[in-house]
Amino acid sequence: MAQRKYSVFLGNVGSCSDRYCSAYGRKFSITELFDRVKSIDLISAVDVALTPDVKPNLNEVRDGIARTGLKVASIMVDAFNDPAFKQGTFSNVDPGIRERSLADMKFAIDFAVEVGAPLVTTWPGQDGYDYLFQADYEQERRWFAEGVAAACEYNKNIVVTLEYKPKEPRTHCYVGHVGTTLLMINEIGAENLGIAFDYGHAFLGYENPAESVAIMKMYGDRMKHVHINDNFSLWDDDMIVGSVHTINFLEFFYWVRRTGYGGYFTMDQFPYREDGKDAVEESIRWMDALESVVDEFGLDAISAVIKKKDAIASSRMIRKMLFKK
Amino acid sequence: MAQRKYSVFLGNVGSCSDRYCSAYGRKFSITELFDRVKSIDLISAVDVALTPDVKPNLNEVRDGIARTGLKVASIMVDAFNDPAFKQGTFSNVDPGIRERSLADMKFAIDFAVEVGAPLVTTWPGQDGYDYLFQADYEQERRWFAEGVAAACEYNKNIVVTLEYKPKEPRTHCYVGHVGTTLLMINEIGAENLGIAFDYGHAFLGYENPAESVAIMKMYGDRMKHVHINDNFSLWDDDMIVGSVHTINFLEFFYWVRRTGYGGYFTMDQFPYREDGKDAVEESIRWMDALESVVDEFGLDAISAVIKKKDAIASSRMIRKMLFKK
Amino acid sequence: MAQRKYSVFLGNVGSCSDRYCSAYGRKFSITELFDRVKSIDLISAVDVALTPDVKPNLNEVRDGIARTGLKVASIMVDAFNDPAFKQGTFSNVDPGIRERSLADMKFAIDFAVEVGAPLVTTWPGQDGYDYLFQADYEQERRWFAEGVAAACEYNKNIVVTLEYKPKEPRTHCYVGHVGTTLLMINEIGAENLGIAFDYGHAFLGYENPAESVAIMKMYGDRMKHVHINDNFSLWDDDMIVGSVHTINFLEFFYWVRRTGYGGYFTMDQFPYREDGKDAVEESIRWMDALESVVDEFGLDAISAVIKKKDAIASSRMIRKMLFKK
Amino acid sequence: MAQRKYSVFLGNVGSCSDRYCSAYGRKFSITELFDRVKSIDLISAVDVALTPDVKPNLNEVRDGIARTGLKVASIMVDAFNDPAFKQGTFSNVDPGIRERSLADMKFAIDFAVEVGAPLVTTWPGQDGYDYLFQADYEQERRWFAEGVAAACEYNKNIVVTLEYKPKEPRTHCYVGHVGTTLLMINEIGAENLGIAFDYGHAFLGYENPAESVAIMKMYGDRMKHVHINDNFSLWDDDMIVGSVHTINFLEFFYWVRRTGYGGYFTMDQFPYREDGKDAVEESIRWMDALESVVDEFGLDAISAVIKKKDAIASSRMIRKMLFKK
Repeated sequence: MAQRKYSVFLGNVGSCSDRYCSAYGRKFSITELFDRVKSIDLISAVDVALTPDVKPNLNEVRDGIARTGLKVASIMVDAFNDPAFKQGTFSNVDPGIRERSLADMKFAIDFAVEVGAPLVTTWPGQDGYDYLFQADYEQERRWFAEGVAAACEYNKNIVVTLEYKPKEPRTHCYVGHVGTTLLMINEIGAENLGIAFDYGHAFLGYENPAESVAIMKMYGDRMKHVHINDNFSLWDDDMIVGSVHTINFLEFFYWVRRTGYGGYFTMDQFPYREDGKDAVEESIRWMDALESVVDEFGLDAISAVIKKKDAIASSRMIRKMLFKK
Repeated sequence: MAQRKYSVFLGNVGSCSDRYCSAYGRKFSITELFDRVKSIDLISAVDVALTPDVKPNLNEVRDGIARTGLKVASIMVDAFNDPAFKQGTFSNVDPGIRERSLADMKFAIDFAVEVGAPLVTTWPGQDGYDYLFQADYEQERRWFAEGVAAACEYNKNIVVTLEYKPKEPRTHCYVGHVGTTLLMINEIGAENLGIAFDYGHAFLGYENPAESVAIMKMYGDRMKHVHINDNFSLWDDDMIVGSVHTINFLEFFYWVRRTGYGGYFTMDQFPYREDGKDAVEESIRWMDALESVVDEFGLDAISAVIKKKDAIASSRMIRKMLFKK
Repeated sequence: MAQRKYSVFLGNVGSCSDRYCSAYGRKFSITELFDRVKSIDLISAVDVALTPDVKPNLNEVRDGIARTGLKVASIMVDAFNDPAFKQGTFSNVDPGIRERSLADMKFAIDFAVEVGAPLVTTWPGQDGYDYLFQADYEQERRWFAEGVAAACEYNKNIVVTLEYKPKEPRTHCYVGHVGTTLLMINEIGAENLGIAFDYGHAFLGYENPAESVAIMKMYGDRMKHVHINDNFSLWDDDMIVGSVHTINFLEFFYWVRRTGYGGYFTMDQFPYREDGKDAVEESIRWMDALESVVDEFGLDAISAVIKKKDAIASSRMIRKMLFKK
Repeated sequence: MAQRKYSVFLGNVGSCSDRYCSAYGRKFSITELFDRVKSIDLISAVDVALTPDVKPNLNEVRDGIARTGLKVASIMVDAFNDPAFKQGTFSNVDPGIRERSLADMKFAIDFAVEVGAPLVTTWPGQDGYDYLFQADYEQERRWFAEGVAAACEYNKNIVVTLEYKPKEPRTHCYVGHVGTTLLMINEIGAENLGIAFDYGHAFLGYENPAESVAIMKMYGDRMKHVHINDNFSLWDDDMIVGSVHTINFLEFFYWVRRTGYGGYFTMDQFPYREDGKDAVEESIRWMDALESVVDEFGLDAISAVIKKKDAIASSRMIRKMLFKK
């Protein structure tokens, strides 16, 4: 059995808002959030996003880490929460915002070093456009790549990861699909640059997550971090793991093993109407159950079947995996 | 030329939030919002949603109406903003919430009477479910219909309208599609019950808005109000009118005229990154331009073509409408 | 355990074409097709579509029925194969085609009587439109309903079922969604009229099949037949049952039981690249496995959970159903 | 005004089939097809697909070219029509099929040389998978790239183009999105390798065609051919140009000009229910009208607006482009 390396975004055990309802549940302090994460079986780490509510309270974060003994899987820079970035970070037409974005990234990198996190992530959801004829795609994509290159240059011991998603909050985001993200990464060429793969985001551009894992392996072995959740294939519903895509998850875990990914799986959910801790605990149990199915069936047995390119053989295998018959 | 009856949700000339960014722009007072609406050419009315920030300040609303002379196109009850409704309003498993929802609706109806609005709207975005196996669809849909029936009974001089949308904030909403909404309405059977049709919502369930207008006419003439905006067909992007679906809009305005709709078109947008007033002004100009194309071409000329069931003839006509050649 | 009533479209154990490749496999005679169906465990009936290749060979069909002892679950009229119907059947602007469509339906009804089938189905995939401004939705929908009413009138002992699907072969089909189909059915009002529900079609208009079953129960108890297959939610891929939507299937079988459906489940697939018989056998085994999960867990246990409207409780239950832990 | 370089697939002026109806219209001879193309204003070239009905009749093709004086914009190899390729061409697990695919490609290249076509295209719609766990993505993608590399090597004076499409006929195709296709192309690195961009295919993976053009420019200037049609964003409906996406087309033509594309626009439609020639003529007139709008407004004027990253300014510009006001 592969080792379970599960983490969670600190805020995920708190409460959520959406564009209508500003607070579905009560606010939790950073200290409370750490305690809630710590209490969840099988979780050994936490991911910390430097959003405007967290960044001024880093001492509370430091205390939480020290007190709980949780590892830090990644530090995420804020590129989506602060309205200063409403027209983008590294791709912003305002050079002042581009500079600030780089400064923020360096700050995140330094904090990663301090807390022992191996990588930082940016999810550039504001870098893109809403309307047709609203943007110079070529210029803005070049600016974005320049910013990323500079961030990689700053500290080669920290891995910088880009999290792609085709839309939301913009109707179209530049770091949107596995292929275009790899093109940018490989053009920059930095060794300490990769993808923070979000399982749910892949569906929005009609990718199959398992195949995206294979593609990230083929073109530079660039999957360096994984965010995990589930959705109904058309929008980033950020649901409990396993709540929709049973077989897709099994195939995903096969490819994750086959390609040798050794990092964390970070729960990344928006449990609007549920208690955040309960929702994360559910995800962890689903993860464990789904991973166990793959481990018990065995990688070699799966590999033997998929080499046949025979849908009937595949269908039989999946039935056996799920129903033991 | 048909008369332009344009309205706007009061909050639409203010600023927006999304699930990441709690405030893209500064907050506007109700008084400021009224002044901004008043300053927009061709807008003669306002729609008021009784959200938690508005409901305690109805005197400011009354003043705004009196001062600006704007008509009130509709009053919308809050069914999506207050976390008390996170598991639904009329369909809630808690009878206390169902009662409160009816009380809120009566309050909205009374306020509509007071300000001379002909109708109230509920958009029950929280009435639905996120997860499979999460809800008793039959029971909850029955409860919902009972609440609506009671609201219609309360004051037969005010029209109650249901706004349908397949998803968001729930992954699946009960009042979701044109057909299922009409089934509920026609079963209840109240004369003062209808649909507040949101042009953009129709796309999310693969409806064609023009055809939905025909269907609402056929099964009870139930389209009583119209919300208008645009999107990329897969999500309720709430963009400026006309920014994506040019030809769909032209066909929609033909069917709106043919079916004799005489109410307002209410701008219902989320201009996250734009000045709200500018975005509404743009929508108004698009509306006027698109409606003019239909009026100039003429309903009879269009009717003659669509009776042929000939795609080539239709294609020629649309080219003439758009390019005069 | 509920009794397994499984049927299959006769042609499904044969070979397929698509719009590019006119023949993926060899042609099978009607006699061969009957033998292939007969050889599949758990299948006790066949559905026969009166397509241009079958209609002239009804004696071969009669022989097949007699020889194999298979029941006939339904007779399907051809409304999609013959290019005469390229602009629709009952909704056609040509009154001659509308008459012919009724004659074809009567022929199908008579044949159903002869072979002991309780119902006929039409899947009116050509009744609709491809282009905007191509059709008079009101007139064509009225014509369609008139044709259906006349068919129901012809023989009240045979149930007429409409199979809905939002698109394909037209980009937009009139009998497209559960709600609009029920509106038409309930307006016609015939007791021998209902829906042939295709599990896969429901996804294309963002319906959840389980909820559609509840809706068909609520508004007239109109689900009279079921076609079953699977797809990736966006197109009618007509795949092996269970190959994508594991949990959706479980929820669907719960609602099918709860609403008291007692008819057949008819496999309706397009196994382009597989042997058709193998693909149907796989579907049957998936059906049996999925139905067993629901039966073993028990309807009452499921009902108790879904009444809570608690996503966490639902998530726990589904994990138990799938993984026994 | 930019020069109009319009071509059409020879078969597009004929008749179509879909997976239900094997022949919507009568069959046309190759000679008739050439005459029909020749009779269309503004079309100066033809694209020829070497499908099983054409390949044995190349003399008729040669005659058609000679008689009409039409240029040949491209030769397309058959990778989708012959059932031999049902499990793929270059990615096939059968080495014999992989060899045959290369032989077919060489044949197409030789024929391109003979008829003066500058490029060949493969649209590898069968190279992919339908079911989860059906394929070894890594191995099959490697095989595919090897085949393409060998084809490029064969004759460096002919450009080999890959046409991407996310799905159909497979539920998932390897050459599926702009980014992953460019990754493969750039890894192979051949100078005579590029993309045959299909405008309609881009929507299926939530790409914006205009942005895809910018991306193809940025990563190797790889757009070497263009297929054009329209659809409702979710499926390859292959409709008349301009019938759905008005503004998207305008933005596309701006980027095509800005990136310096100088090749043909090839009409690639499936006018199932229309006369093929009429449908192509309509597309040509739409093309001309849409291109004229962009030319009259002017590239510099557009460039100046999109550099502002201001949705309001963009909205105003588009209104002026469409309505001159």
